[in-house]
Amino acid sequence: MILTVTLNTALDITYRVPSLRPHASHRVSEVTERPGGKGVNVARVLAALGHEVTVTGFAGGTTGRILRDRLTGTPGVRDALVPVSGTTRRTIAVVDERSGGTTQLNEPGPTIGPAEWSAFQEAYGDLLASASAVALCGSLPPGVPVGAYASLARIARAAGVPVLLDTSGAALRRGVAGRPDVLKPNAEELAELTGSHEPLRATQDARRRGAGTVVASLGPEGVLAVTPEGRWRATPPAHLHGNPTGAGDSLVAGLLAGLVEHLPWPDRLTRAVALSAATVLSPAAGEFDRAAYEDLLGRVAVTAEASAA
Amino acid sequence: MILTVTLNTALDITYRVPSLRPHASHRVSEVTERPGGKGVNVARVLAALGHEVTVTGFAGGTTGRILRDRLTGTPGVRDALVPVSGTTRRTIAVVDERSGGTTQLNEPGPTIGPAEWSAFQEAYGDLLASASAVALCGSLPPGVPVGAYASLARIARAAGVPVLLDTSGAALRRGVAGRPDVLKPNAEELAELTGSHEPLRATQDARRRGAGTVVASLGPEGVLAVTPEGRWRATPPAHLHGNPTGAGDSLVAGLLAGLVEHLPWPDRLTRAVALSAATVLSPAAGEFDRAAYEDLLGRVAVTAEASAA
Repeated sequence: MILTVTLNTALDITYRVPSLRPHASHRVSEVTERPGGKGVNVARVLAALGHEVTVTGFAGGTTGRILRDRLTGTPGVRDALVPVSGTTRRTIAVVDERSGGTTQLNEPGPTIGPAEWSAFQEAYGDLLASASAVALCGSLPPGVPVGAYASLARIARAAGVPVLLDTSGAALRRGVAGRPDVLKPNAEELAELTGSHEPLRATQDARRRGAGTVVASLGPEGVLAVTPEGRWRATPPAHLHGNPTGAGDSLVAGLLAGLVEHLPWPDRLTRAVALSAATVLSPAAGEFDRAAYEDLLGRVAVTAEASAA
Repeated sequence: MILTVTLNTALDITYRVPSLRPHASHRVSEVTERPGGKGVNVARVLAALGHEVTVTGFAGGTTGRILRDRLTGTPGVRDALVPVSGTTRRTIAVVDERSGGTTQLNEPGPTIGPAEWSAFQEAYGDLLASASAVALCGSLPPGVPVGAYASLARIARAAGVPVLLDTSGAALRRGVAGRPDVLKPNAEELAELTGSHEPLRATQDARRRGAGTVVASLGPEGVLAVTPEGRWRATPPAHLHGNPTGAGDSLVAGLLAGLVEHLPWPDRLTRAVALSAATVLSPAAGEFDRAAYEDLLGRVAVTAEASAA
């Protein structure tokens, strides 16, 4: 199975309102609710592709209970979340029906105690024994050491399980030192990590910091990958209009699926970019449109890239 | 015990953010959560005053479960909510720390099925047997007949239990026909019911529509009461600055407390206005400041009012 780690899980709630006006009262016309946090989203896409996936990380309180109830109802996803005494956060996306804009309200995550962090590490070690790959995803909740991803990456490598890291800020800066097999920053995270806004230079720099491969996601321009076997750009067809929510998580799911199926890099990138684009095209945020995905598999352009150095 | 009915209960969530900006992402700095809906708020105040209170109405789904868990933790309040298959609504108040303004997001309530409405009426009849007074509070969820409050008021009167009605719109217009002992509209509800913006005239008119007594709440100007024993105005000291959330519910709690203690009307009004004003002065929305309440009891002015007719 593929293991995804989400230390800061969330219950993602979406409200639709005609138009959000500060200091006014709004009747919400539609409420949707689903388990969230990057690794949970990645797991949902992997399961939809037919992979066996296990989700770990933390869950607690009434929101954690709702999240776990919902996960249990997701076919193909096994819940191996570690209970904590704090309460899992909610995120609320208020979608303005008139403009299509989204206002985001994110609760703070629970503080993780030292005993809870130890319990997680033990569970993680046990889960790695049957994992074909592991993805370390998203932000770190308060109480988890900033070097957490470096240490989790090292444990996975020692167990012979390939590791993908998708995070930001200090967790990314410190995590890359754990030498993950794949790093998946977006343009902003890459610039923050390397100080360079030139994608190829920054991607190569990120790889020198410890990652085996860096796949930089460049939004509508697709991805730029610097791997031990070569450098490629994979680009979706132009003019994809839709909702980019979850496109990065679908990209990670595609990379993991290609990894465990031992596809050559250009094929992995094609799959990942097609999934990501099919997520932008789907009317439901964070879901992918299967017909669009299959069509896009034949329309992603992969080109070799010369070195910037 | 005093019985409060809240057919459209809610889990009231308050978020504090530095400043709410549409289409931006916000980190919520503080989350508070408590059982809500007018009758639930009234019950909380009554329990704090030392009264035994029972809460009935509907609760369902995961939000209903959280609401009931929280009610169980409220001393003096007994939970007699009737389970429904739909999900109890959440309301989110986003408090802007910079301006102090509040943006409200209200989920729709669950739709009540005919069998659920029958189950409620049966439970209500049983609860009336040990009630000294009943308050019918707030909006009607979808599925409940618009004449619900008229019928619940008649059942209570037949059981010899005095009834207070606090609602708005069609539920108020139809409910008053059930001849509640006390009607507690605010200025807006009163104008909507009677078509008159002149408070004394409108209050007298509302009484002629079927209520035994009408206590109109006029915000900072206190209340105007037209009772079988006379007409009074009760006014708090000027210049009360604070948060008016829950002031109307505290007013209802004060009227009920005075009713079951058989206080003369001027004393009931004094108590209700002092409680309401002490709620405005409390830093926590919907709570009352006990020291302020005791001080205000001696500072509310009650004056007899001549008829407008």
